[in-house]
Amino acid sequence: MEAMEPLSRIRVVLSRTSHPGNIGASARALKTMGLDDLALVSPRHFPDPDATAMAAGAADLLGKARVFESLEGALADCALAVGFSARERELSHAPLTLRDAAPQLLEATAEGKVALVFGNETSGLSNEELARCQRFVVIPSNPGYGSLNLAAAVQVACYELAVSAQAFAAPASRERGAASVGDVEGLFAHLESAAVTSGFLDPAEPGRFMERMRRMFARIRLERQEVKLLRGLLAALEKKR
Amino acid sequence: MEAMEPLSRIRVVLSRTSHPGNIGASARALKTMGLDDLALVSPRHFPDPDATAMAAGAADLLGKARVFESLEGALADCALAVGFSARERELSHAPLTLRDAAPQLLEATAEGKVALVFGNETSGLSNEELARCQRFVVIPSNPGYGSLNLAAAVQVACYELAVSAQAFAAPASRERGAASVGDVEGLFAHLESAAVTSGFLDPAEPGRFMERMRRMFARIRLERQEVKLLRGLLAALEKKR
Repeated sequence: MEAMEPLSRIRVVLSRTSHPGNIGASARALKTMGLDDLALVSPRHFPDPDATAMAAGAADLLGKARVFESLEGALADCALAVGFSARERELSHAPLTLRDAAPQLLEATAEGKVALVFGNETSGLSNEELARCQRFVVIPSNPGYGSLNLAAAVQVACYELAVSAQAFAAPASRERGAASVGDVEGLFAHLESAAVTSGFLDPAEPGRFMERMRRMFARIRLERQEVKLLRGLLAALEKKR
Repeated sequence: MEAMEPLSRIRVVLSRTSHPGNIGASARALKTMGLDDLALVSPRHFPDPDATAMAAGAADLLGKARVFESLEGALADCALAVGFSARERELSHAPLTLRDAAPQLLEATAEGKVALVFGNETSGLSNEELARCQRFVVIPSNPGYGSLNLAAAVQVACYELAVSAQAFAAPASRERGAASVGDVEGLFAHLESAAVTSGFLDPAEPGRFMERMRRMFARIRLERQEVKLLRGLLAALEKKR
């Protein structure tokens, strides 16, 4: 991959995580989106076999994850700290949605590391933790049940940043081998003559048959191979009669 | 919540899922984003206590999830089926990125149910499964390690659809009680007089002190309460001298 500079300057900080599986799943989430800086603040269990299992192919990120006793430590060298929360908070800064925040956070990487801070699974970020952050980001969710799993929230955040950074090329559109207009007209002529020869179409009263066929085939943007296939089928059907 | 019509017409189909925990975590992912139609094709274990545990507050979605023996069954009443894959496929339709696809998928809900189809954790969608789909969507990811966890991929897909549908209001910007220009000018005047009185600022040679203060405070868009607080502090410091 081409390491994208902005993404390499994003740090994900997990504070007081209870379940080591979530640490591993978060490492996997980071790596799939091209991030690799994971910091842990007072995790309940780490290292832990559950973390390793859930990290799957991202165990290397766990291996180099740094563990801090305090959030201050994890943020010390960062230019900006961003608190993530499922809900609005009393003492909070005006919240931004993740989508609106993403370009701003990438821009801020020009000034140094940008930390995305996620709190404990049950209680989220404490007011003290949130007070260490200069921005407050919300992932919009169902007001009736907005409780994203911790690693799922990390995945969504990393995804949004990677898309905003255009980190990964859109999948290459394979050579479709689109049929030419001539190919398609050849098919239509063949189709019409077969329809007439078979008795299905009365050339004196053709109605809208060919118009409908044209409309239908226009929608599917035929490939050259498909035109060949259809004409082969028509030829076979004609022989059969 | 206001149930958004388009999201209620999205079905998530999990085919041949190996780990029941992923089924539960997927149910949770759906519910957090306001979706509620989960279909399972030949799950290895279901129902299962791991599924229930991982569903957390979305156990109701598991309770009403329908189980099918074949993908055809799960898609029978759908207007459109969309295959998700981490990688490009040989026999595939031209792939769309999730972001580009989202508005199209929402639009297609006008014609009926739209199914998002996710394959097995290890092998993804088989070519046979993909052939049942009319669209093929890719979540762009790290070419060096693009293996999203199944439930994480479901979460990202549901998130993207919910954002595209504008299903959930942006977090209400709390009444900031922004300071008026008059409030802020009062603060600047107070600050300047305090700086002079304290001897910090020489009124004959003020330099750029006030200009710098104005620039700094302009960045933080003061609230009325904050102006009060700062002026209280200034007053107290003045008394102390």
